[in-house]
Amino acid sequence: MKIAIVGAGSTYTPELVEGFLKEARALALKQVYLFDIDSYRLRIVADLVKRMVEAKGSPFTVKATQDRKKALSNADFVLTQIRVGGQRARHADTKICLEEGLLGQETTGAVGFAKALRTIPVILELCADLKKYAAGARLINFTNPAGIVTEAIQKYGGVEAIGLCNVPVGMKMALAKDYGVSYREIDFDYVGLNHLSWVRKVFIRGEDKTAEILEKEIEAPANIPKMNINPKFKRALGMLANSYLDYFYLQDEMTARLKSEEKTRAEIVEEIEKALLKKYQDPGLAEKPKELEKRGGAHYSTVAVSAVKYIALNSGKKLIVNVRNNGALPDLGPDAVVEVTSLLDARGATALTVGRLEPEIRGLIQQVKAYEELTIEAAVRRNYNKALLALAANPLVTSVNKAQRILDRFNQEHKLGLREL
Amino acid sequence: MKIAIVGAGSTYTPELVEGFLKEARALALKQVYLFDIDSYRLRIVADLVKRMVEAKGSPFTVKATQDRKKALSNADFVLTQIRVGGQRARHADTKICLEEGLLGQETTGAVGFAKALRTIPVILELCADLKKYAAGARLINFTNPAGIVTEAIQKYGGVEAIGLCNVPVGMKMALAKDYGVSYREIDFDYVGLNHLSWVRKVFIRGEDKTAEILEKEIEAPANIPKMNINPKFKRALGMLANSYLDYFYLQDEMTARLKSEEKTRAEIVEEIEKALLKKYQDPGLAEKPKELEKRGGAHYSTVAVSAVKYIALNSGKKLIVNVRNNGALPDLGPDAVVEVTSLLDARGATALTVGRLEPEIRGLIQQVKAYEELTIEAAVRRNYNKALLALAANPLVTSVNKAQRILDRFNQEHKLGLREL
Amino acid sequence: MKIAIVGAGSTYTPELVEGFLKEARALALKQVYLFDIDSYRLRIVADLVKRMVEAKGSPFTVKATQDRKKALSNADFVLTQIRVGGQRARHADTKICLEEGLLGQETTGAVGFAKALRTIPVILELCADLKKYAAGARLINFTNPAGIVTEAIQKYGGVEAIGLCNVPVGMKMALAKDYGVSYREIDFDYVGLNHLSWVRKVFIRGEDKTAEILEKEIEAPANIPKMNINPKFKRALGMLANSYLDYFYLQDEMTARLKSEEKTRAEIVEEIEKALLKKYQDPGLAEKPKELEKRGGAHYSTVAVSAVKYIALNSGKKLIVNVRNNGALPDLGPDAVVEVTSLLDARGATALTVGRLEPEIRGLIQQVKAYEELTIEAAVRRNYNKALLALAANPLVTSVNKAQRILDRFNQEHKLGLREL
Amino acid sequence: MKIAIVGAGSTYTPELVEGFLKEARALALKQVYLFDIDSYRLRIVADLVKRMVEAKGSPFTVKATQDRKKALSNADFVLTQIRVGGQRARHADTKICLEEGLLGQETTGAVGFAKALRTIPVILELCADLKKYAAGARLINFTNPAGIVTEAIQKYGGVEAIGLCNVPVGMKMALAKDYGVSYREIDFDYVGLNHLSWVRKVFIRGEDKTAEILEKEIEAPANIPKMNINPKFKRALGMLANSYLDYFYLQDEMTARLKSEEKTRAEIVEEIEKALLKKYQDPGLAEKPKELEKRGGAHYSTVAVSAVKYIALNSGKKLIVNVRNNGALPDLGPDAVVEVTSLLDARGATALTVGRLEPEIRGLIQQVKAYEELTIEAAVRRNYNKALLALAANPLVTSVNKAQRILDRFNQEHKLGLREL
Repeated sequence: MKIAIVGAGSTYTPELVEGFLKEARALALKQVYLFDIDSYRLRIVADLVKRMVEAKGSPFTVKATQDRKKALSNADFVLTQIRVGGQRARHADTKICLEEGLLGQETTGAVGFAKALRTIPVILELCADLKKYAAGARLINFTNPAGIVTEAIQKYGGVEAIGLCNVPVGMKMALAKDYGVSYREIDFDYVGLNHLSWVRKVFIRGEDKTAEILEKEIEAPANIPKMNINPKFKRALGMLANSYLDYFYLQDEMTARLKSEEKTRAEIVEEIEKALLKKYQDPGLAEKPKELEKRGGAHYSTVAVSAVKYIALNSGKKLIVNVRNNGALPDLGPDAVVEVTSLLDARGATALTVGRLEPEIRGLIQQVKAYEELTIEAAVRRNYNKALLALAANPLVTSVNKAQRILDRFNQEHKLGLREL
Repeated sequence: MKIAIVGAGSTYTPELVEGFLKEARALALKQVYLFDIDSYRLRIVADLVKRMVEAKGSPFTVKATQDRKKALSNADFVLTQIRVGGQRARHADTKICLEEGLLGQETTGAVGFAKALRTIPVILELCADLKKYAAGARLINFTNPAGIVTEAIQKYGGVEAIGLCNVPVGMKMALAKDYGVSYREIDFDYVGLNHLSWVRKVFIRGEDKTAEILEKEIEAPANIPKMNINPKFKRALGMLANSYLDYFYLQDEMTARLKSEEKTRAEIVEEIEKALLKKYQDPGLAEKPKELEKRGGAHYSTVAVSAVKYIALNSGKKLIVNVRNNGALPDLGPDAVVEVTSLLDARGATALTVGRLEPEIRGLIQQVKAYEELTIEAAVRRNYNKALLALAANPLVTSVNKAQRILDRFNQEHKLGLREL
Repeated sequence: MKIAIVGAGSTYTPELVEGFLKEARALALKQVYLFDIDSYRLRIVADLVKRMVEAKGSPFTVKATQDRKKALSNADFVLTQIRVGGQRARHADTKICLEEGLLGQETTGAVGFAKALRTIPVILELCADLKKYAAGARLINFTNPAGIVTEAIQKYGGVEAIGLCNVPVGMKMALAKDYGVSYREIDFDYVGLNHLSWVRKVFIRGEDKTAEILEKEIEAPANIPKMNINPKFKRALGMLANSYLDYFYLQDEMTARLKSEEKTRAEIVEEIEKALLKKYQDPGLAEKPKELEKRGGAHYSTVAVSAVKYIALNSGKKLIVNVRNNGALPDLGPDAVVEVTSLLDARGATALTVGRLEPEIRGLIQQVKAYEELTIEAAVRRNYNKALLALAANPLVTSVNKAQRILDRFNQEHKLGLREL
Repeated sequence: MKIAIVGAGSTYTPELVEGFLKEARALALKQVYLFDIDSYRLRIVADLVKRMVEAKGSPFTVKATQDRKKALSNADFVLTQIRVGGQRARHADTKICLEEGLLGQETTGAVGFAKALRTIPVILELCADLKKYAAGARLINFTNPAGIVTEAIQKYGGVEAIGLCNVPVGMKMALAKDYGVSYREIDFDYVGLNHLSWVRKVFIRGEDKTAEILEKEIEAPANIPKMNINPKFKRALGMLANSYLDYFYLQDEMTARLKSEEKTRAEIVEEIEKALLKKYQDPGLAEKPKELEKRGGAHYSTVAVSAVKYIALNSGKKLIVNVRNNGALPDLGPDAVVEVTSLLDARGATALTVGRLEPEIRGLIQQVKAYEELTIEAAVRRNYNKALLALAANPLVTSVNKAQRILDRFNQEHKLGLREL
């Protein structure tokens, strides 16, 4: 078995490889190819990864390459974790939006829109290569905004893709710590889109603990500012909300907070990464360093390895992933990508049925999905009009005049090549 | 034939009666009953109306009463145009919202929510009487928020109801003036909810003039502040937008505008009404005074008389009304009330099929409909939690913490009796 | 205005022209072109039609031609009433089916299937010419099986088409006679597919008379054998059933009946037509002869002229036609052609919403529609497998082994050119 | 853990118990209660079962009782396998139908209808007791017609129920033998209703073997007559058909076959059971006798034990069961019970999404489901009209006049108490 990691210069890669090391035998994993366009980061990360694999007795070989054909050829699984434009672009997007008082984060609001527009054309190019060099390979996408990017791949890439997010497993891990159980003993009645999801019910060892958990504070991801939400609303909602929902539920407060912060998240991450990459260069280091946890993407490895394993071994087990809706949420179209519990086996991921949505979450999900559809169309067709309509449809964009101004700036800043028709 | 007007103390009543006078013979209209709980306004308006009817040769009798049973008994049509709490409540709602920086108008945003919560219980009580005293009567509802109120009646009132709005005919009249045709020669491909609608295509004498019209400025209703929307967005949208959409498309600018205004719309209307009521008391006045046009509800009469006529005469003609969806917009549930072209005949109003919505309008329609559903549940069950979820689902409410604060104030101010469960 | 009649050699044509003569002025009708591939019949019918038009003062000109380009060029409306293979083919189909004990009629069962397979390729060729010579023309289709043929045109012809049937107006006329009213004073709550429809409610002058009418015998079309259906079933159903439903409700009895008859309907019609064509050649005849009524297609003219008029004059009136479903019946796909009340205006026909179907009619409608879909695919792709699946899906085909045998015979008899894949 | 078996006098019970014996430890199974209204059969079967359990070292206790309260109290799982009226009623149903030339089998056609009507009231009574004595227990239903009975329970029983059938596992076992693999290594893309299902794809060890398998003869259940279906149809269909589909695909041939048989299946089974019960009384017998295989219900035990295990152990594994549709097949309503791959865990069974159906199977599924809905309504309301409409909607009932005659006979024969309204 061969796995190719695209965007392997990411500081997350050691975490991912750590996961594959644990399951190398079960997976009969023979080769891991690391690909990145950034030769500096690729070399540093690859060297660390090679030391890690060697320290474990070299169950598989590791190759670093900047030749996409070599990386992809005959791969069984391709993992994508790219960041088009890097932290610089992310910083610019945030700044452009905040200058107009608009909110966002790399997956959410106008900032997420800008990232999607930069990313989709690149990922579709990758898909074209994938079909050429590794027909039948499975694409596992971590690239954010993961829901939109996965939907773009499924609609236009001609490649079977599953989108992964660490939030569901992260929520389970936080609860598991609290309850002193394994995260595998926790089941979620989970529904929504990537970074726009709710846990309707939590079962711990088969028992419904939702009411109890709603009264608790649950540890949120490191990359989301901690906000105070009034307890009456939490009680009225009666579900656990993904922390990213703070951007919607507390739009005004979050905007004020982001405006007040000295550094953008992009700038902070840039510093963390600089330190990490320095650390990675320590020739004595042969394991994932503890500092990686600050980076925000904890548990990605857990989800990625589970997904690969269930498919490769035809396990028929459930996992919360980004998958073609296919009727799971009848309030959305069948081609929408949704984040729901799915069954993973040799045929890939199949969504389990969920049923009609409560109105308190339905409207927002439908509106964000409409925005996502438009965003994909805009990116694929480089269509300015669709892009403007996408921004206008985003619930965090509170003025179409502002939308037009930021769109013109994105178009110029990132050379998106959007054309009015 | 007997028509009962509930909320007849409204200054609009003379306009309505003017319409019925024109069609009295065709309709075989014999009796018009005017009902209001405000004896002062009822007397003034009734006196003017009686003079108007007399001046036209008394084709039907006019009776004013504060006895609801008398007003409703054996009516064929009941027209509702009530304003629970009057302009005072409307003013209070607007102020409460603006203090939190939240936008709204009596049908839209948190202000519309407050009006809905006050109004639904009163209108459902009326429905109970209607079933008792005039089984089989048709209810024609103008009471705002007309879409929500009509949906509440259909779901919980047990009465056949159609909701009317003057916006569609107003848009046609504005275009008719521009093109020198009758508004009857204009056809719309019209879609949406009350005060949240779009004209996808305009046909003048059967010819598609949409592209041409999109480049023009169309006269908006008097009660909506005039805003500048960028032409790129108008072009990207490619449809005519209901003027009320400015609250959504230009939420930030509209908030700034409303904050900057010295008087609320409620205060302005109160003054207009004071002047109108004074004018109405002139014993020499026997027709609708020209000043009524400032009031904002132009053309209600045209729509109301058309609706009554098409049903009473089993005409089988089309009219844009608020009606049970029933599959017209498959992106919404069958029980949702939508504002679409319908066929009116003896059986009432039946929606024409419209089909799937474009994503640029679909998400917003779905989110507002989810909000409307929650609002109705909150009002019917006096449920604080549902009310809070309704506000949180409203796209113009940008913080659930603010939502909770204004909800507590509404609850107290209007004695809504909402209970947390 | 120009109307082209394709298949004008039909003995129905005088009836059609009689209708247009009555409305010639209102329609501003200038030219009627008669086209047929059968020169013998075309000449006879055209001569009679010319005498009829002349007798009424020649409000429009009549031209007979075998040049399709001439016939179609710049037509505003094209009426299709073709019978591919003539009565001979119809006779053969019936015989082939009866030999296997299978039931059918030119629109229903395996016999209707055979006609569809012969007809669809011819009608799609006509559509190709229509797009070339008369872009924007409306196609009004009477060709049977009208529902399937209209759906084929809408899906593959690239032409706007409406399918017409005389059954709904025929039912109204029968009731009108009974109640001494005009058929225009009767409204139906009508639902289904062509020749597979039900009247859920009958309103006479706006009053619901359904229960009363269910106890009566209503005159059926001349071409359907008179059958006895038990009154308990009629009461249980609670709707008026289209007479063609006897083929389904009394499949065994109808099969026995058809087997026992000496002549097929095709043979009888052939004789009627021979006599009619002889009559038509009488140079003294300048009106539709009374004998035409035996032919079975009474009132086609009424429906055809109404359809043309409502569209041409942008009337916005309702008519029961075969039209794109578009959500009217949510139990069927949006692209299915259904027979429902529609609004006709300059934009064509738009279905009114009907809503969910009762299970007692839903299953049969869905199964027949699935059969129709497969039939269209089989005809368009000349695909033997799809054809066999279509027959197997037809509720009147009670054995897939028999289906295979008759399909092989149809394929040979009519040179359908179906290929196994 | 306690399991109650209702209808334990069935000759299948030893097979079931054999299965539980194998998994007793894993399930922590402590008590098995056997309940039947037939004391003779209950005693014989219970004695054998007790010997079987003892022979395996008595991992759990076995109690036989005719006290329903005792049997159900605090059960964790209740398995229902009742036959209201016994083989005598089954025989009568078959004869009544065949006299009118109508086809059927205990789950299919008018014969299955009669069984459903007898069974539903009894099973709903059981549900009432279940709610009283064992709230929260899971009901696992084998009672035929399993799909209809399970839907009736879910709609009207107020009890969580899963319906099981041995056909899917039987098909897998037949293929497994052929391919020399374990049935667990075979995956189906499976879709339909109970006894009306198709395998769209077969994967053996993850590899698609459908095309190859379509050319083979697969062993059918013992209770279905072996029929010849033409290979062209099999190829056109391209899916494996459940053997029960022969009743639909070869309705005429199957009718002729059944008419020609000397004994009904009921009579044959009665003889088999007589012999089995005699065998069961052998005090030396302490295991399931080989002769049971003739009875027809092979592998029920495999499915039942899997279902109980996956739920009890919160396994999250897939199994093909009868389950609430919930959007899995968007062509059917959400409340329909369908037979599809589901995920079983502590929360019960959740259907996996399947998506739109091909027209060649869609129509028949929809029609049979409409029939099933009507049958349930008829049984629950004892409504003659609904019963007549149900029969008329059944694709194997080819005349509503015959339907009326057999319904009157069923009503009298089984004292169904149906009332015309």
